[in-house]
Amino acid sequence: MPTHEPATLVVLDLVGIFVFAISGALVAVRKELDVFGVIVLAMCTGLGGGFLRDVLIGATPPAALADWRYLLVPVGAGLITFWYHPTLGRMERTMLVVDALGLALFSPAGALKAVDFGLGFLPATLMGMVTGVGGGIIRDVLAGRVPLVLRPGILYAIPATAGSAVAVLGLKLGYHNLPVTLAGAIVVAVWRLLAIWRHWQAPAPQGPASV
Amino acid sequence: MPTHEPATLVVLDLVGIFVFAISGALVAVRKELDVFGVIVLAMCTGLGGGFLRDVLIGATPPAALADWRYLLVPVGAGLITFWYHPTLGRMERTMLVVDALGLALFSPAGALKAVDFGLGFLPATLMGMVTGVGGGIIRDVLAGRVPLVLRPGILYAIPATAGSAVAVLGLKLGYHNLPVTLAGAIVVAVWRLLAIWRHWQAPAPQGPASV
Amino acid sequence: MPTHEPATLVVLDLVGIFVFAISGALVAVRKELDVFGVIVLAMCTGLGGGFLRDVLIGATPPAALADWRYLLVPVGAGLITFWYHPTLGRMERTMLVVDALGLALFSPAGALKAVDFGLGFLPATLMGMVTGVGGGIIRDVLAGRVPLVLRPGILYAIPATAGSAVAVLGLKLGYHNLPVTLAGAIVVAVWRLLAIWRHWQAPAPQGPASV
Repeated sequence: MPTHEPATLVVLDLVGIFVFAISGALVAVRKELDVFGVIVLAMCTGLGGGFLRDVLIGATPPAALADWRYLLVPVGAGLITFWYHPTLGRMERTMLVVDALGLALFSPAGALKAVDFGLGFLPATLMGMVTGVGGGIIRDVLAGRVPLVLRPGILYAIPATAGSAVAVLGLKLGYHNLPVTLAGAIVVAVWRLLAIWRHWQAPAPQGPASV
Repeated sequence: MPTHEPATLVVLDLVGIFVFAISGALVAVRKELDVFGVIVLAMCTGLGGGFLRDVLIGATPPAALADWRYLLVPVGAGLITFWYHPTLGRMERTMLVVDALGLALFSPAGALKAVDFGLGFLPATLMGMVTGVGGGIIRDVLAGRVPLVLRPGILYAIPATAGSAVAVLGLKLGYHNLPVTLAGAIVVAVWRLLAIWRHWQAPAPQGPASV
Repeated sequence: MPTHEPATLVVLDLVGIFVFAISGALVAVRKELDVFGVIVLAMCTGLGGGFLRDVLIGATPPAALADWRYLLVPVGAGLITFWYHPTLGRMERTMLVVDALGLALFSPAGALKAVDFGLGFLPATLMGMVTGVGGGIIRDVLAGRVPLVLRPGILYAIPATAGSAVAVLGLKLGYHNLPVTLAGAIVVAVWRLLAIWRHWQAPAPQGPASV
């Protein structure tokens, strides 16, 4: 949720929050929560990753608490899902693609904000990953399930981490904010979309687990 | 957990923490946790909402970490519940009413503290809601259940949000801290008590959820 | 995760993070998460307690985000567990003992860092306990189970709290950082190891819980 970026990026950022928020609201509908539960899961999913990052790097209050658009967008996404969830639920494939674009925007931008606050390569990359997947983790914890991103069957966090690393590396090499954000976003989007298309998965542990 | 308020409000604040802490400790007893689990759930429920707000608005360390009474009150509530939980469990109706008064005190005061830290109308109202319901959400996540406040069958967070909005609006219109806190608290308490009495619920989504 | 300590303590600190991280990774393997889930649970368990403390006392960004060794150690622990979990799972007894030593190092040192940031006796002791048990709580919440430390059958948090109290008290009485850390660590380690050996448990509530 960076604020010091060109208007285009703010719009893209709000689109990302909107899509993440809809994914949270759909989980709330499936879990049979009420309208307040739907809105809370929408806000946590849309804004939670950025909040986690900002609290960890000391950028408080988070940018989303200083700009009412960042609050109204997930509330709107929650209400739209509350009313039109049967339609949205049928658009799962489209949602997956837009979600991949949201992840592509969030992660590298989140990593660069961490660099702004003095973090090195590895911690900033980690913060980019947190920005991208943190909202979904909060969503799943509140919905009472093991976070989707930690379970086998989906390649999600590794592209987010790779794209964040690309963006931070580019910045440390002296390139400007905008091109390295775009380069990182392209890495995330292409890798994530290929993973959806080809059903790539992260490896799971082999052998029986001890009890 | 504001500290710069008159002694009466500090006492009421501690009463609110005490009641919230008992609700957390009762959940711990039901979940068959040990004495440490009971105390931790008491502390998280009594102090968690204020901690979440303070961490998000950058008011760290939270006031409760600078004043030992704010720590001893929930510990005491936990120990009392540990020993006398059968009696407390039978006072459910009384507990609901006192809990409504706790919510009435916490939410508007929490919203006004966010204004003190520079937040605008919408974010400060959100922080008031977080102050009121955050502790219960942490309690339920630690107890391994979907937060009560997100599930149908209870009108809880909407009164807290409305009362927070009234308090922040009053302050922005130039009224003093004390009258707007009271006005907000009355909105929360009346609405919440009516909801308990008349079994009001927040609306739930209509139609089958997609899977 | 203090940084202003002698090299010996940094090494011991990293050992503690390593052992905690392995306990998180083993839970992830049992829950059949993928490689990313294993690494995330390793990081959250190894670093989460210190992160919680640092966010609460306002020491952001946490020290672990300023020193890449603190990130690489839990990632390494996660990967080792990913590959060799059958062997590690069989070393449960050894792991319990090393975990007790990790707890002994983390809790008093965490409490003293809170004193550095201006906290009094009671809040600093609480922060020591949070440093010691916070990572395991985050691990269990992400793995979808009620935190082990809150459930009967294990005496874990009370030794951590006692050792933190000893360290803070010693410091307030004018002793130096190193001896009071050691005194606190010895209290935690001895009490915890005796609890493992003699199967000590914290008391659980008596009588039927109300529903």
